[in-house]
Amino acid sequence: MKRRELLAVMAANLAIAQRPETPRIDEAALRRLLEGLSEIGRPAGGTFASGVSRVGYTDEDLAGRAYVMDLMRKTGAKVRVDAAGNIFASRAGTDAGLAPLLFGSHADSVPEGGNFDGALGALAAIEVLRVLDSQRITTRRGLTAVVWACEESSFAGSALNGSRAAAGMAQDMKKVSRGLTKAEAIRRIGGDPERIETARIAQGDYHAYLELHIEQGAKLERAGVPIGVVDGIVSIDDYDVVVTGAANHAGTTPMSERRDAMIAAAQLTLAVREIVTAEVGAQVGTVGHLEVSPNAVNVIPGQVRLSIELRDLSSEKLERLGEKIRSRASAIATSTKTEITMTRNGHNEAALADAKIQGVIEETAKRLGLRTMHLPSGAGHDAQMMAKLMPMGMIFVPSIGGISHSPKELTSWKDCAQGANVLLGTVLEMAG
Amino acid sequence: MKRRELLAVMAANLAIAQRPETPRIDEAALRRLLEGLSEIGRPAGGTFASGVSRVGYTDEDLAGRAYVMDLMRKTGAKVRVDAAGNIFASRAGTDAGLAPLLFGSHADSVPEGGNFDGALGALAAIEVLRVLDSQRITTRRGLTAVVWACEESSFAGSALNGSRAAAGMAQDMKKVSRGLTKAEAIRRIGGDPERIETARIAQGDYHAYLELHIEQGAKLERAGVPIGVVDGIVSIDDYDVVVTGAANHAGTTPMSERRDAMIAAAQLTLAVREIVTAEVGAQVGTVGHLEVSPNAVNVIPGQVRLSIELRDLSSEKLERLGEKIRSRASAIATSTKTEITMTRNGHNEAALADAKIQGVIEETAKRLGLRTMHLPSGAGHDAQMMAKLMPMGMIFVPSIGGISHSPKELTSWKDCAQGANVLLGTVLEMAG
Repeated sequence: MKRRELLAVMAANLAIAQRPETPRIDEAALRRLLEGLSEIGRPAGGTFASGVSRVGYTDEDLAGRAYVMDLMRKTGAKVRVDAAGNIFASRAGTDAGLAPLLFGSHADSVPEGGNFDGALGALAAIEVLRVLDSQRITTRRGLTAVVWACEESSFAGSALNGSRAAAGMAQDMKKVSRGLTKAEAIRRIGGDPERIETARIAQGDYHAYLELHIEQGAKLERAGVPIGVVDGIVSIDDYDVVVTGAANHAGTTPMSERRDAMIAAAQLTLAVREIVTAEVGAQVGTVGHLEVSPNAVNVIPGQVRLSIELRDLSSEKLERLGEKIRSRASAIATSTKTEITMTRNGHNEAALADAKIQGVIEETAKRLGLRTMHLPSGAGHDAQMMAKLMPMGMIFVPSIGGISHSPKELTSWKDCAQGANVLLGTVLEMAG
Repeated sequence: MKRRELLAVMAANLAIAQRPETPRIDEAALRRLLEGLSEIGRPAGGTFASGVSRVGYTDEDLAGRAYVMDLMRKTGAKVRVDAAGNIFASRAGTDAGLAPLLFGSHADSVPEGGNFDGALGALAAIEVLRVLDSQRITTRRGLTAVVWACEESSFAGSALNGSRAAAGMAQDMKKVSRGLTKAEAIRRIGGDPERIETARIAQGDYHAYLELHIEQGAKLERAGVPIGVVDGIVSIDDYDVVVTGAANHAGTTPMSERRDAMIAAAQLTLAVREIVTAEVGAQVGTVGHLEVSPNAVNVIPGQVRLSIELRDLSSEKLERLGEKIRSRASAIATSTKTEITMTRNGHNEAALADAKIQGVIEETAKRLGLRTMHLPSGAGHDAQMMAKLMPMGMIFVPSIGGISHSPKELTSWKDCAQGANVLLGTVLEMAG
């Protein structure tokens, strides 16, 4: 969208918002903000349906950040970029003694990603500030909309960069991706790697954190429910598995004498599914990465490397499932005459949403005539980091077909606006 | 080995061979020939244990060919290179009306291969001619030692190049490997791609074909038997399998809603083993190549491509096993909500060894006091092509640990010499 069109839209929206009614986010206005951002990082010659590549620290990410900062400034809020490159738009409350309320999401995307993941929550947060500004409503508590830097993985294994820094978690500044060290990348978006610790948010700095996001799953769509109240963000355990057998001639080695690493890997892959589905619950387990060596048609596989990823709200359940898989791996190694090593590579703590905030979200949706359901978030979010520092709540809206991280990612404009209005209502309720 | 050392060895060997005894191949002499060839294509600074890379049409292959041609000329035989680059050393018999006997192997290797695969049979064939020449023995039937061009794969999917041409099988002369078309490569070793059809051997041109080779398996070693009488060379069926599911977020897609291509591929991998081992026999089945897409830790695999290779002496059995696997694949596709396509990519006919020749080999070994056992060849050989044109027989000697296509490939010098002596005895028996 061109600047002139945008201003016209904002003026029109302002006229609507200035009616003396309960503040509301307008579907058409929110849609135009999302359509405007979707043009940044869109493949050449593509349309909205072509999705975006706005990978953290790239030129497209810089342009996306300029777009949101421009919108933030127009709300009259005070805009600042912290040392990690996170962008904050702050609006003072009437009671300076109260900690402000923080809410937002991210504006970067995965490569060949969609138009809603992050973008919806980031733009809805800014639109909340704009609507309040246009209606000259001032809350008791201050409000801060945030757009986190690089939530999606730009540096291998280093997602949640901006909010990680805000949570005070160590990051390797010398890590290189796309030819830049993380320090250089952070500098590129206006951050200051030498003062990265100043990006740290202390407990008590904010009252709570709210995030509106697309579900990235199909539970809401299938249930026909427009608003999801997130119970928490799952814990993730990642394992690296190495299966070592003996590579040998596929023609001259009898079946009984083989130490076939792929046979063991296949058994383990099926065991992961079997063990994960044997218990009642929403836990998931995935073998997503697998590499065979030497990987030749006529050679018995000598080694297979594979990943096992387990997710659930309960770390204890993940621990138990991991132990069951480890024990099964050991039995498989014996029966296939292979060696199997299983190393826990990473553990992401679960982040539970605050029960009181869940209640406020539910009440707000009810007032707007919207049905709700509770569900966990299987995907990670910036909210996971904020939960370490303050009470956290998340609002989900339906993903059509449950698709995300794809140009096919889609949420209806109506659902987007309903989610944004639940955010707005929750903000007003919590900020007084 | 230097030329001078080689001449000294040959002179010493000549002295031994000139004793008025049954002609015999001397272990030390054969060893020195193999050690000499092993220096060509050896990694810089390596030893005999480092193996060789004498890949068809490379400079190392050219040097190896020069080495064997030099040895051939010293036997007094007539040496010629055909249009496919195969090298023949012919020694006339007393009865020009009888078709000559053909025997040999190849002198090229796989990359990072061993010192015995091909080399033993090629050098033993030349040594047979040399021993007969040194003892002034002339057979009734003419004798032709052959070193086939490029038995190992230099051009993708085009192994058995020289002997394939001799069997009149079509080859794509425009096929490129290592920057050369096959036509250019054949020209490089003294062949003539425009006249490739002249390399064709007609039925009746030769009486029979014999080949001494290392087993490349561990059956002889395990049985403690020095001489293997090959029943035939197995038939090979290759299948390309594509499993298509749906890639999705590993955190947000419940287990029950997944269409995980890796789960289906794991089931199929185990089914191949189960089906192949359900029947009595020496058949083997291997999933050696497997590629997962998108192959990310946190994404459910959307597609898996894998190979299935089946080998047995009976083409009919392979056909039956293939059908059983196909039917199981279809059931797996249904139960995992994936699609599985299974395409037969190649079929190599089995080549049965001639029963009479098997008998001669057995009798010869017996006379030399060597135990024998029958076994199929799970690996392909030039003999497979020759079996299309004439009766064929193969002699195997033990491979230590069953290892081949590796620098660790090893056969004891004693076993090498015993195999060569069985070849010599069989040649004398069959050539009169």
